Amino acid sequence: MSAKTIYVGVVGIGGVGNHFLSQLSRLPNAPALVLVARSSQTISSTAPSYTPINSFTWDEISSNPSVTKSGAWTPDQIATYLSQLPGRAVLVDNTSDVTLANAYPLFLSKGISIVTPNKKAFSSSIDLWNQIFTSATTGNALVYHESTVGAGLPVLSTLRDLVATGDKVTRIEGVFSGTLSFLFNNFAPVTPSSTSPPGKWSQVVAQAKELGYTEPDPRDDLNGMDVARKLTILARIAGLQVANSDSFPIESLIPAELESLASDSAGAAEFMTRLPEFDERMESVKKAAEAEGKVVRYVGSVDVVAGKVKVSLEKFDKGSAIAGLKGSDNIISFYTERYGASPLIVQGAGAGGAVTAMGVTADLIKVLQRLH
Amino acid sequence: MSAKTIYVGVVGIGGVGNHFLSQLSRLPNAPALVLVARSSQTISSTAPSYTPINSFTWDEISSNPSVTKSGAWTPDQIATYLSQLPGRAVLVDNTSDVTLANAYPLFLSKGISIVTPNKKAFSSSIDLWNQIFTSATTGNALVYHESTVGAGLPVLSTLRDLVATGDKVTRIEGVFSGTLSFLFNNFAPVTPSSTSPPGKWSQVVAQAKELGYTEPDPRDDLNGMDVARKLTILARIAGLQVANSDSFPIESLIPAELESLASDSAGAAEFMTRLPEFDERMESVKKAAEAEGKVVRYVGSVDVVAGKVKVSLEKFDKGSAIAGLKGSDNIISFYTERYGASPLIVQGAGAGGAVTAMGVTADLIKVLQRLH
Repeated sequence: MSAKTIYVGVVGIGGVGNHFLSQLSRLPNAPALVLVARSSQTISSTAPSYTPINSFTWDEISSNPSVTKSGAWTPDQIATYLSQLPGRAVLVDNTSDVTLANAYPLFLSKGISIVTPNKKAFSSSIDLWNQIFTSATTGNALVYHESTVGAGLPVLSTLRDLVATGDKVTRIEGVFSGTLSFLFNNFAPVTPSSTSPPGKWSQVVAQAKELGYTEPDPRDDLNGMDVARKLTILARIAGLQVANSDSFPIESLIPAELESLASDSAGAAEFMTRLPEFDERMESVKKAAEAEGKVVRYVGSVDVVAGKVKVSLEKFDKGSAIAGLKGSDNIISFYTERYGASPLIVQGAGAGGAVTAMGVTADLIKVLQRLH
Repeated sequence: MSAKTIYVGVVGIGGVGNHFLSQLSRLPNAPALVLVARSSQTISSTAPSYTPINSFTWDEISSNPSVTKSGAWTPDQIATYLSQLPGRAVLVDNTSDVTLANAYPLFLSKGISIVTPNKKAFSSSIDLWNQIFTSATTGNALVYHESTVGAGLPVLSTLRDLVATGDKVTRIEGVFSGTLSFLFNNFAPVTPSSTSPPGKWSQVVAQAKELGYTEPDPRDDLNGMDVARKLTILARIAGLQVANSDSFPIESLIPAELESLASDSAGAAEFMTRLPEFDERMESVKKAAEAEGKVVRYVGSVDVVAGKVKVSLEKFDKGSAIAGLKGSDNIISFYTERYGASPLIVQGAGAGGAVTAMGVTADLIKVLQRLH
C-alpha cells in the first residue's frame, strides 16, 4: 500500500465513457489519468513529467493547453505509451471495438492491466480468451470485466467467488438482455391487464423501438447474439471451453423468411414493416405456454454438468422469479452444489450508461487495491 | 505479487469453521495455516520455523505431532502470536464471540487483517465500529466481513461498490433471516394450497423448530435482534451513524405477555406451550394484509435519506419479489439513484455452514490478493 502512482488510459468517450470519467473524477485517491482517446483523436499527458490530466469531460480535456493532441493511435501505440510510464498502468476500454480487444494480450504481457465492459475479447475465440489470461499471468497484470455481463450487477464477481471457493456450479440461467426482458414482460405478462391487454408481438417490438429500448436496428437484439456473447463469458468462467459465441444453439427471433433482408437501415425498415406477418407464430408460442399455466421468456442457460449452452424461448411457471421480472430488468440464477435447489439470484437493470460505468469503476477500484 | 508467505490463524471450529477449513484445504496458493483455536484449546505452529499446519480437520490438527498445544488463549495472546510471525497475518474469526470481537482494533492496529462472519463487532456500539476502521487504516490492515449479512450472498460487497463508485443509495429493504423467511412464506403464502392450507402461527413456528430452521430457543429468532444486527451493519456502510443495534424500532414477534418468561430452556418450553394463545393476533395481521390483496412479511429496512432504520411486519403486493420468496431464502433490495425505480436485488440462502464459509473464504482470497 505504497503511495506509488498508478496511471490510467481511457479509450471510448460514449455513453459509458462519459459516465465513467464523471465517476473517476469523484474517486478519493484517484489514479493519474494520462490518456483519453476517442475514434479519431488521442489526448495524452506529455512526457517526461506525465502530469495527470485533471479534467474529466472531453471538452475540458481537449481544451487543456498542457496536453499532447494526436489523431487516432493504434493499440500498439497506446500500449507503448502506457508501458513506458514511470508506474503501473491500467487501460480502461469503454469501446466495443474488436481491434482493441484483440490487442489485450499485448497490453497484458507488457504489464498493463485491463478494465472493460467490452464483450468482444471475452466472447470471441477460446484461443483469444486463453491468450488473455496467460498474458495476464506472464505480465503480472490484472483483467476485470464485470460489466460485460449484466452491466453493474455483481454477476461475474459472484460466479468467480463460487468457483474460487470450490463450489460446484451446475447450471446458470437467466434473462441477459434488457431489451428482450422488456419485450417478453410486455408481450406475455404474468397478470395481463384487462383494460389494456398486451399487444401483438410486432406491436410490442415497435413500441420498444420507439421508447429506445432496442438497438437502432432491432434485429441486433432479436438475433440473440448479444445474449450468446454474455453466455459464452459465463460458461467459460464456469469452466467450459466454449469455442466461440456461435458454437452452440441460438434461437433467433428473426423469422427465417426475413433473414435475407439487407443489413442496412432500409432492411431494418422493411423488417419492421413485414414483422406483423409473423405475429400469429409468436401468438401460438405464447398460447402454448398459457395452456400449461406458464409464460414464455427468452433465456440463456449454461448446463455446466452436461457442458451445454443455449439461447432459447422457454416456458416458466408464473410464480417463478424469471416470470416475475419487471420492466427491462436482467435476472441471473446460479444453481450450485452448496446452494442446492434454491439458486443464488442477482436481479436488476443490466444496461445503461451509469450502471455499466459503475461496474467499470468498481473494477478499477479493485485493480488499484491489488496493484499498489 | 511477491511470493511472500501470508499466515492465517483460525478461531472457531463449529459448523462454519469446519466448512471453512475444508475450503481452505483446497485453495491453490493457500496461505500458511499456523493457528487453530476452539473454546478451550489452541494449536499453533511452533516457533521459530512456523511450519504450516498441513491438516484441515480438528482431529488431524490435534494429532499432528509437530504442533504446540495449549489451553484457551486470550485475544491478546493470539494477537501477540500472529504479530510476531515473519510475514503478514490474517485472523479468521469463525466464532460469534464478543470478547474476540472487541479485540479487533487491537489486531488491526498490529497489522493483522481480519476476515469474519461474526456480526458482534460490526453491530455493537458505533464507537467500536469507528475504532475498527480507524485501526485498520493505522495498522495498514484489511477487514472483510461479507458473511455477517446474508452469509455468502454478495450483499456487503455490492453495497460497498455502490457507495465507492458514487451512487446514492436511498433505501435498503429485505428479508434478512432464513428462519423468519420460512415462517412467513409458510404462514402467509402467496397462493395457499387448497389441499393443505397453512397452519396457525404457533403450528408454523413449532414445525420450523422441529425441522431445525429455528435456533434451539425460537425466541432468539422471533425477537428480531439478529435482523437488527444485520441492518445496523448495512445502515452504517450506507453512511448512517447508527449508535447501536437496539437504537431503532424493532418489532418483536414475542407477545408482550410472554416477555417475562425465563430465558432458559424451561422458559423456551413454556413459550412454545403458550404461543397458541396468541394465534388469533397473528391471524388478524394476516387477514388485514389479505383484505388489501397483500401478504405479510417480516422485513428490515434502511431509509438512508430519512436516516431511519426499522425491523417490522409489513404488507407486500403478491407480485412483489419479497412476497414471492421461497423456502428460507433471504432477499435484499438496494434502491439507488442510478438503479432508479427498479432495485438491484440479491436473493438466495442466507444461512448454513457451507455458504457462510464460502463468504469467509472468498473474503480471505480478496485479502490475500491485496496483501501480497
